[in-house]
Amino acid sequence: MIIKKRYVEENESGAYFTAYLLEDSKELLPGKKRPVVVIAPGGGYLFTSDREAEPIAMKFLSLGYHAVILRYTTGNIEEGRIGVGKQALKELAQTIYYLRQKSDLWYLDKDKIAVCGFSAGAHLAANLGVHWNNKELIDSLKTKEKRAEDIKPNALILGYPLLDYEVMLHKAKLEAENEELKGNFEFIKIANKALTGTVDLTEDIIKEYSPKFWVSKHTPPTFLWHTATDNLVFAENSLNFALELAKHKVPYELHVFQNGGHGLALANEITANSKEQINEDCEVWFDLAANWLKKHIPLS
Amino acid sequence: MIIKKRYVEENESGAYFTAYLLEDSKELLPGKKRPVVVIAPGGGYLFTSDREAEPIAMKFLSLGYHAVILRYTTGNIEEGRIGVGKQALKELAQTIYYLRQKSDLWYLDKDKIAVCGFSAGAHLAANLGVHWNNKELIDSLKTKEKRAEDIKPNALILGYPLLDYEVMLHKAKLEAENEELKGNFEFIKIANKALTGTVDLTEDIIKEYSPKFWVSKHTPPTFLWHTATDNLVFAENSLNFALELAKHKVPYELHVFQNGGHGLALANEITANSKEQINEDCEVWFDLAANWLKKHIPLS
Amino acid sequence: MIIKKRYVEENESGAYFTAYLLEDSKELLPGKKRPVVVIAPGGGYLFTSDREAEPIAMKFLSLGYHAVILRYTTGNIEEGRIGVGKQALKELAQTIYYLRQKSDLWYLDKDKIAVCGFSAGAHLAANLGVHWNNKELIDSLKTKEKRAEDIKPNALILGYPLLDYEVMLHKAKLEAENEELKGNFEFIKIANKALTGTVDLTEDIIKEYSPKFWVSKHTPPTFLWHTATDNLVFAENSLNFALELAKHKVPYELHVFQNGGHGLALANEITANSKEQINEDCEVWFDLAANWLKKHIPLS
Amino acid sequence: MIIKKRYVEENESGAYFTAYLLEDSKELLPGKKRPVVVIAPGGGYLFTSDREAEPIAMKFLSLGYHAVILRYTTGNIEEGRIGVGKQALKELAQTIYYLRQKSDLWYLDKDKIAVCGFSAGAHLAANLGVHWNNKELIDSLKTKEKRAEDIKPNALILGYPLLDYEVMLHKAKLEAENEELKGNFEFIKIANKALTGTVDLTEDIIKEYSPKFWVSKHTPPTFLWHTATDNLVFAENSLNFALELAKHKVPYELHVFQNGGHGLALANEITANSKEQINEDCEVWFDLAANWLKKHIPLS
Repeated sequence: MIIKKRYVEENESGAYFTAYLLEDSKELLPGKKRPVVVIAPGGGYLFTSDREAEPIAMKFLSLGYHAVILRYTTGNIEEGRIGVGKQALKELAQTIYYLRQKSDLWYLDKDKIAVCGFSAGAHLAANLGVHWNNKELIDSLKTKEKRAEDIKPNALILGYPLLDYEVMLHKAKLEAENEELKGNFEFIKIANKALTGTVDLTEDIIKEYSPKFWVSKHTPPTFLWHTATDNLVFAENSLNFALELAKHKVPYELHVFQNGGHGLALANEITANSKEQINEDCEVWFDLAANWLKKHIPLS
Repeated sequence: MIIKKRYVEENESGAYFTAYLLEDSKELLPGKKRPVVVIAPGGGYLFTSDREAEPIAMKFLSLGYHAVILRYTTGNIEEGRIGVGKQALKELAQTIYYLRQKSDLWYLDKDKIAVCGFSAGAHLAANLGVHWNNKELIDSLKTKEKRAEDIKPNALILGYPLLDYEVMLHKAKLEAENEELKGNFEFIKIANKALTGTVDLTEDIIKEYSPKFWVSKHTPPTFLWHTATDNLVFAENSLNFALELAKHKVPYELHVFQNGGHGLALANEITANSKEQINEDCEVWFDLAANWLKKHIPLS
Repeated sequence: MIIKKRYVEENESGAYFTAYLLEDSKELLPGKKRPVVVIAPGGGYLFTSDREAEPIAMKFLSLGYHAVILRYTTGNIEEGRIGVGKQALKELAQTIYYLRQKSDLWYLDKDKIAVCGFSAGAHLAANLGVHWNNKELIDSLKTKEKRAEDIKPNALILGYPLLDYEVMLHKAKLEAENEELKGNFEFIKIANKALTGTVDLTEDIIKEYSPKFWVSKHTPPTFLWHTATDNLVFAENSLNFALELAKHKVPYELHVFQNGGHGLALANEITANSKEQINEDCEVWFDLAANWLKKHIPLS
Repeated sequence: MIIKKRYVEENESGAYFTAYLLEDSKELLPGKKRPVVVIAPGGGYLFTSDREAEPIAMKFLSLGYHAVILRYTTGNIEEGRIGVGKQALKELAQTIYYLRQKSDLWYLDKDKIAVCGFSAGAHLAANLGVHWNNKELIDSLKTKEKRAEDIKPNALILGYPLLDYEVMLHKAKLEAENEELKGNFEFIKIANKALTGTVDLTEDIIKEYSPKFWVSKHTPPTFLWHTATDNLVFAENSLNFALELAKHKVPYELHVFQNGGHGLALANEITANSKEQINEDCEVWFDLAANWLKKHIPLS
């Protein structure tokens, strides 16, 4: 394996990606351009979680895919680094562009680039999925050519994604008196500020930052999974997004497991820091996702 | 195994169930009262499909559950047997009641009765799930006592269920010009007549016959699966129902697979009459459902 | 499903089989002649265990196979019913013959008859596998025609089989001082008497009753599974038998799992009477066997 | 991930290993010393196959294990580099020693070092398994201390291993006239020369180079898998080795799949260069091995 670390914007933002590239071998698929999965870890736009980074990369590598982990720009309330959502989105777009440029050198199939995100990282992935043909985003690219198709992901895998701020706010109102959820709602507020720059989400902001409102027939095929008892990012995010995908006839697959908290990553001991993060029922999500991904970006 | 065939209403309607009862053995869980799954095959309320009957029973029997296949009353337009929905619902309720009465004799755990339905049969199962505590239904029982808890299912498994007539009509309008779907819409019309007695579904009828509108906190835990490309009973039926379950905090699990037509049954060669009915991706639904069911009506 | 119970020899011996026949349906594989699995439960030729009977039948039925449970003649030392091995073998042969006669009536493919045995039942199954073309056995049939091909099984599935009395006696000597195994060796002695009529196994008897010595190119394809820590019927039975199958180029598959006691049946809670009989590692044997069986007697 | 490449003997022989080390993270099992799998690819001691190198490492990394690929010294008949068996064995031993030295620095649990080999690489792995306490081997170490326990593997995974030269020669005689196998026997001869330095295997050489003869109670727990139709390295190698493991009460697990040629690696498209190397039945070996390995060198 060859590991390449690259700053996304020549170190301006500090964002970087690490590419894990399987080696070309004359004994095994010589000259094979492989599909690649770009991983966007979660962390409420406040950090990028290691639990959703390297272990996920290893899983895709074990399937014969290249893997790339993007450490996108995250917010820091104290340092005043807020409203990072658009910056992170540009970085993801820039990363996809960069990978396509490296197609020959890195034995990478430029028509087979998936993005796999978790939580806030899934929000980021979905945002690229719905906005890759947005003029403003394209124009912001630090690239010679400004072409939508250079930044389009070919498939999305979204784990417990935040996709719908209407749902988030609606539930926050409904459950305002729920003591158990208070901590969660506080975290969401800080995360919202990191993402949007404010805690007071106006209708315009809600619309702007909710991928749900931007689904179109141009959105790439999408795999979603969630737990019905996720008390931080509610499963309705995925249900509503799936309804939009259905409406626009975008191929999609959705799995909502009955039990499990937010942030399960692989849902087994490989990514667990506590017993609660081991969940045999949910662990199957990765095999379901891998099986689905093969339909869209097959190894061969 | 012991097989019992019983007419649900002393042969008035001709509806009957066949109970497949695992034998009690002094060598194996002696005296064990087993959970039971009542199977409601689909067929648009026009017949009950063998593809969703015996093979499904065998799967649950192989897990150590008793299985019961209900051949409920279906419609026949030519013979004027229409509007059978309520009759079928009463038969299902009567069946659950009957099984609870036989609890001791048949070694059957009366707190562990699931209903597993497909398509129209899933509509039927869901209807019992949302209406088991409906006074009219309870009063219609041909039983000594009239008690809601006697007919309440403890869990529901719904395969490509029809749950939402709003979605059905909305899609019919949207896709009115779609030549490919014309045959499907014709079938749905006939099925609607068999169920409701009319093809002109008023708002009242839509509400009355759509389980989606009747979900409450009293609805039992529910497992749903669908294919996103089901062109007869659209996946939105399940998505919208899941949103209602979430709203009322009913435990649920939902799996929407990307590809696959309507009526896959086990999705493998055991229930397939054509290649299209073999679908390896969807076949996993049964294991997911069995795993889920264990949480609600475990063998031990 | 249709259940048929038949005495194997017009009730002379009391041996009988129960056939579980999936129903023919015009909706599902109409007129389909199905493969069938004949199940020979274990029990040291002293009884036939329910744990290895109905639950196993249900598993094969769930795959779309017919299933037949044979309750063969077993020994009873006190009543002087010993040396039952040959009687049981004749009953199994007679059963296979009978099923082939019923091929049309029972929708049963006479070229797709497997025998699945456990422990002593696997010894019985293997004995038919190696002796189906034995003249004495054929002549003993209570049938009009006496033809080897009428009693030949098309495939064998052997769970923790006793196949090699050399190994059994050798280990008994080696472990003579092992207190833990004393009870097991006592049981084996009684089982030996039930089978052969004596506890003093001469070389001739050892040879006669050990399927290992009779493997030939005519032995049907065989699937074996065992646990390495089986302290009653040692895994060497299967290892040595596999060596013979390899020598004679008979297709075979063998799985020896590291941990697990004798008599696991399905190795899950469905057939367990104690925690020790639940063994997740071994549970996979059935799927491996089913997958293997499809190669030899496919559903379609 | 951190990749370390080290020459095993300060570049004397050119042999080297590549260690793929999962990164320590304060978010995920901080300070965790992980188990490690050392991979010995096959290639008849004539090369080390890429098909059994990186893809295998990726699988173990995906389970949370560190992985190390050893590129041991192989023979070259034309260059007169023959009899490399002992050199390769020393290199493997040296590698294990080296890893234990790096335990703290590389977050590597020195009590959890497995060796996973294929074909000739499995021969190498098994040789260390049976000879790690051999004085000559220990004395040959280029280390300060010369201690057996420093080079003992804690578990072995052997894929289609060559373990028994008696079987190899016996089959070669039996099948001398088999035209189909001629090419295979020629390859084996060259491989034998590469390994032992001669094509005329005397009884002494056979004994010396057959791990089968050296199994003892000190041999580590072993997992073996093979295909029954392997026409290069016959399955009897594994069957006979398993008999020895059983005799010495070494925990073992063995899976012999019915169909499949030699050298399947992962048996799926990830390691396949041809359709014949894709074998769904055998592909399960890795999950079986991983499940087994967890018992001996668990992640936590």
